[in-house]
Amino acid sequence: MAIDKGKILSGNIRALSKAITLTESSLKSHQNEANKLIEDLLPHTGKSRRIGISGTPGVGKSSFIERLGLFLVNKGHKVAVLAIDPSSPVSGGSILGDKTRMEQLANHPNSYIRPTPSAGTLGGVAQKSREAMLLCEAAGYDIILIETVGVGQSEFEVKNFVDFFTVVLLPGGGDELQGIKKGIIEIADTILINKADGENINNATRTQLEYQSALNLISAHSDWQPKVQCISALENKGIDTYWDLSDSFFDSEKSELLISKKRIQQNKMWMKKLFFELINKEIRDNSQLNNLWGKANQDIEKNESTPINKAQELFDRFLTSYTSK
Amino acid sequence: MAIDKGKILSGNIRALSKAITLTESSLKSHQNEANKLIEDLLPHTGKSRRIGISGTPGVGKSSFIERLGLFLVNKGHKVAVLAIDPSSPVSGGSILGDKTRMEQLANHPNSYIRPTPSAGTLGGVAQKSREAMLLCEAAGYDIILIETVGVGQSEFEVKNFVDFFTVVLLPGGGDELQGIKKGIIEIADTILINKADGENINNATRTQLEYQSALNLISAHSDWQPKVQCISALENKGIDTYWDLSDSFFDSEKSELLISKKRIQQNKMWMKKLFFELINKEIRDNSQLNNLWGKANQDIEKNESTPINKAQELFDRFLTSYTSK
Repeated sequence: MAIDKGKILSGNIRALSKAITLTESSLKSHQNEANKLIEDLLPHTGKSRRIGISGTPGVGKSSFIERLGLFLVNKGHKVAVLAIDPSSPVSGGSILGDKTRMEQLANHPNSYIRPTPSAGTLGGVAQKSREAMLLCEAAGYDIILIETVGVGQSEFEVKNFVDFFTVVLLPGGGDELQGIKKGIIEIADTILINKADGENINNATRTQLEYQSALNLISAHSDWQPKVQCISALENKGIDTYWDLSDSFFDSEKSELLISKKRIQQNKMWMKKLFFELINKEIRDNSQLNNLWGKANQDIEKNESTPINKAQELFDRFLTSYTSK
Repeated sequence: MAIDKGKILSGNIRALSKAITLTESSLKSHQNEANKLIEDLLPHTGKSRRIGISGTPGVGKSSFIERLGLFLVNKGHKVAVLAIDPSSPVSGGSILGDKTRMEQLANHPNSYIRPTPSAGTLGGVAQKSREAMLLCEAAGYDIILIETVGVGQSEFEVKNFVDFFTVVLLPGGGDELQGIKKGIIEIADTILINKADGENINNATRTQLEYQSALNLISAHSDWQPKVQCISALENKGIDTYWDLSDSFFDSEKSELLISKKRIQQNKMWMKKLFFELINKEIRDNSQLNNLWGKANQDIEKNESTPINKAQELFDRFLTSYTSK
């Protein structure tokens, strides 16, 4: 699958799509080709705002993203939407299978919408989205919206490669929380209370205040105090103020430095994580080591051995299996 | 250093102290001996309530622990207090260097107070406390209180081997939070607002309500809804209600099952973590690999290579360095 680098850089959508498909291939030769391509394109990446948007099904996340996307393309931006669908291991899954979900945005020449597969790849659910994001940046998209459904681990992984992480909730407080994975609220840079329209307005405002005070007390951030905002995707309200908020996050000089540092940190962590995943995979693929690991877990369950002894034993055997090759 | 297993099991304090000192030794032979000893004693461990207590200096954590400890020994319990002091790499550090801090408790025959060293050991700051905890259990202590200062990573590690994690705060809300490491509130099973006495009472109650509502909205827990309580260590108030709360956590049949599952999970995670730390140590000790890792990080900083390519390269070189031995 020969991909024309120049075509990607000039924003050719067919070339971009082909390149993303290449990253999704499980063939080793395709993987190598994709890795080489992304490495070649690296100098042309990094110029976008990387925004994660998470929310359980039913909160109106897609409507919000369509409104936001249209607002941005009308301001002259090029917007890519990458959706991570944990239910679909290959592309074309349910989350964005029907592009009708964001019909208006999908038809705009300055937008690009693409589901990314998730399961079973090295680097976890977010690896392919990370690569797709870099390719979109090289193709000139200056705003990348990464959509996740807020119910699993993918949010925590996405948080590790976006600049700005937004969680969309419904009015009504605690109960609505049940659907969302514990711990996600704490990592959000913004929370949006959607459906703040009609009879819901008071309820939404109350929910906003509750979350704002909770986040003022408790928040895992240090450089940015997370904000909570009401919006109505239905009535197209609050999109501009959300964008103003994003501006205040991205635009100061201090932010620029912080974001650049954060990205370097994210990449270093990512490398380390991948390295250890390769070690993990090596162990899983080695039936002897794999059995030993299983046996060690059993001994620990039966309280017959300490984690420290078992870890040392596994480590010794791991090295021996290579030195003796 | 020959340690008499029987003496530990019979609760001999000298033997217990010697055994803990053995775990703290950096000599490989001592380490092996300590690991063997702990493994032998494993069947006699696990029968305590493992409680983490965290709070920044000045919140009155030690006074609270002394009050709680005295309350418990007077009820017939045997109480061990293990204090992790990040400022002191060897035992006898500042946090508990003066036993006068908990003089009354220290002098009670059914209590045992011991600082545990933190820095520079495999398994991070908490490894030694984990081992000391097991030894104390074997020596018949049925309540283990693990004290940390709430400003670093040690809290997150302690959370991974205790059953019940308590954070002590001061009245006054947000500002006081500044001292405590971000993210600790979210992992607490209980929060205590200390110094709820004299003129502080209203302020403390307000702080309690604020944290309670925040935690009701936002909390990383699923099986237990964290509670917030006012206490006064000075006036010895609220110690009994704190213990009632701990009872409600530990005493139901469902809790027993959950705690047993949690401990097995903690041990498996611990083994995995230690295994990867051994790999990490192996890389650090191999100057060639270590340089390569540093170089990879530099390439990533300069945006000259992707984490995925660098991770693969490091992994290949890691294996080669052993297959070629």
